Amino acid sequence: MAQVKITGTGSYVPNVIQKNEDFLNHQFYNEDGSAFDEHPELIIKKFEKITGIQERRYVENNLNVSDIAAVAAKKAIEDAKVDAEELDYIIFAHNFGDVKFDSQQTDIVPSLASRVKYKLKIKNPKCVAYDLIFGCPGWIEASIHAKAFIEAGLAKKCLIIGAETLSRVIDPHDRDSMIYADGAGATIYESIDEKGGILTHESASFTYDEASYIYFDRTFSPKIKDNTAYIKMYGRKIYNFALTNVPDAMKTCLDKSGVDIKDLKKIFIHQANEKMDDAILKRFYELYDVAVPEGIMPMTIKTLGNSSVATIPTLYDLYKKGELNNEPLQPGDVVMFASVGAGMNINAIVYQV
Amino acid sequence: MAQVKITGTGSYVPNVIQKNEDFLNHQFYNEDGSAFDEHPELIIKKFEKITGIQERRYVENNLNVSDIAAVAAKKAIEDAKVDAEELDYIIFAHNFGDVKFDSQQTDIVPSLASRVKYKLKIKNPKCVAYDLIFGCPGWIEASIHAKAFIEAGLAKKCLIIGAETLSRVIDPHDRDSMIYADGAGATIYESIDEKGGILTHESASFTYDEASYIYFDRTFSPKIKDNTAYIKMYGRKIYNFALTNVPDAMKTCLDKSGVDIKDLKKIFIHQANEKMDDAILKRFYELYDVAVPEGIMPMTIKTLGNSSVATIPTLYDLYKKGELNNEPLQPGDVVMFASVGAGMNINAIVYQV
Repeated sequence: MAQVKITGTGSYVPNVIQKNEDFLNHQFYNEDGSAFDEHPELIIKKFEKITGIQERRYVENNLNVSDIAAVAAKKAIEDAKVDAEELDYIIFAHNFGDVKFDSQQTDIVPSLASRVKYKLKIKNPKCVAYDLIFGCPGWIEASIHAKAFIEAGLAKKCLIIGAETLSRVIDPHDRDSMIYADGAGATIYESIDEKGGILTHESASFTYDEASYIYFDRTFSPKIKDNTAYIKMYGRKIYNFALTNVPDAMKTCLDKSGVDIKDLKKIFIHQANEKMDDAILKRFYELYDVAVPEGIMPMTIKTLGNSSVATIPTLYDLYKKGELNNEPLQPGDVVMFASVGAGMNINAIVYQV
Repeated sequence: MAQVKITGTGSYVPNVIQKNEDFLNHQFYNEDGSAFDEHPELIIKKFEKITGIQERRYVENNLNVSDIAAVAAKKAIEDAKVDAEELDYIIFAHNFGDVKFDSQQTDIVPSLASRVKYKLKIKNPKCVAYDLIFGCPGWIEASIHAKAFIEAGLAKKCLIIGAETLSRVIDPHDRDSMIYADGAGATIYESIDEKGGILTHESASFTYDEASYIYFDRTFSPKIKDNTAYIKMYGRKIYNFALTNVPDAMKTCLDKSGVDIKDLKKIFIHQANEKMDDAILKRFYELYDVAVPEGIMPMTIKTLGNSSVATIPTLYDLYKKGELNNEPLQPGDVVMFASVGAGMNINAIVYQV
């Protein structure tokens, strides 16, 4: 049977570098409106220790997320050497849509997938373009859609995009605003007669207690009276939730694939927070009673921050092209993608190169 | 092989009735900022003649689209007599998310599907909840997703929702604002050992020239200086586009099914605009050189307006339950769903009851 494989990748790393010290003049407040009483330097030092983030990237004011997504998509199409007119689907995973620099409004009419298709000048109307809203795990989930459509006979070639401009939806008075970044990653999946590809996948939505762990609400600053909403999260709750549930989902996914934990070459995890990612990795290997292999989890969070749904396709693109000072992946290598985010959603894919 | 059939439907028709005469005091402007110089009564009379709309429904100020979607979903679950904990997917098609009464912001974090799952108190994390952005044709497209997931072995039972509160995103100075309405429709699709169900489907995204026929932009009033965006459309372009492309897509879909045009019992079309829907129907039957059968196309637009992605699942629910003074559908009856909207997207399903 034909397998569903990645034949091309692309990404767009925005040009504006926002360093931690650029937040030194921010007045941060807690959720209850009380001011942080620590020195700004100390707040930033603590932040960096937990998240691993030293700087992050933002788009220039004239760009929107659909613009940078189109750049990443074009690179992925060129990398895959596919004719864009032969794409059956463009699936764009995001969570905030186009938010112009001078606006607080999400613009998703038409869908961002339609905008990318327009920017790529694709004429074929049979190339179906839609947006998927699934929190940070959106790119993995869209990859699962691609696999399902290929297996159901609806598609042979799919362009999957994960892109976000979180710089447009952050509350400058919330310490968590330092986590968020902008970025775009794109991937071509094709049905090809070759072994490997997506071996197994897992998806879950936890909503009973967890639906609002990541949410959209007004500034923490008690001095600002307007009700403009920003991305918000309960970091501690997310940390505990992720540690309880992500390693289990990863294990279920790997066990279904029949691949031995020792044969797993790399884990490309959502760049959420370095401390959390490290803890997830540690617990995952504990489930197998195996030591964490050195260098198993490539990271970009130090310089790129958390660009939500864009982190994994960007990381994988950079890694695949050897841009992280890394040895390239070899045909037959088995890797894992894993994510957690708003919803609260968790998913994973075991993928053979 | 098991078929993908609708086993339950539900809808929510909002309580607030907004009549055409409620727009009498609106000052309407053209796209170029010039004022309509006709008498308001004449504007409304012309509007009603073209669209067929006499009144439309809006939600109360305290409700958001995820609230009314949850009501429709609960009815569909009860109608299907399924255990909500056995649902594999909740797919929520919309285009503007939750927009609170006093806000201009789209809120889709967490996704509306997660919100509905939360409101339904579903615990099972394996029930995957996501939102689909595909313009007015979103409910049909989500139905195609359900079929693909069932055929790819990912699902057996899916809850598909189409819901929108367009009253929250309309420009009071745009004559087209009279078209838009609020509503929610929900459908349960199941894999069951019975003939019929979704026989064929067609989907297309036209973006080369058409991507921005429906868009999001500032008020037409030159007196208002803020840049808050609202739903906007080029009605004449959409009319010509739909007339050129929708009947062809419907014919392709029907021909693939092998069903004779004379055996098609009903066509449930997106309630966009009565004149346009009539013209699409006329051209569709012309393609077969067959007269349009009396009463083939049930309509709700007169009293419910255009609630975007909610029109077809609401119409089908009301029809199925005999609430439109109609004869009920019989097992074995073949019907068609067809839609056109932002993207610009077109799709159709041939469905056997």
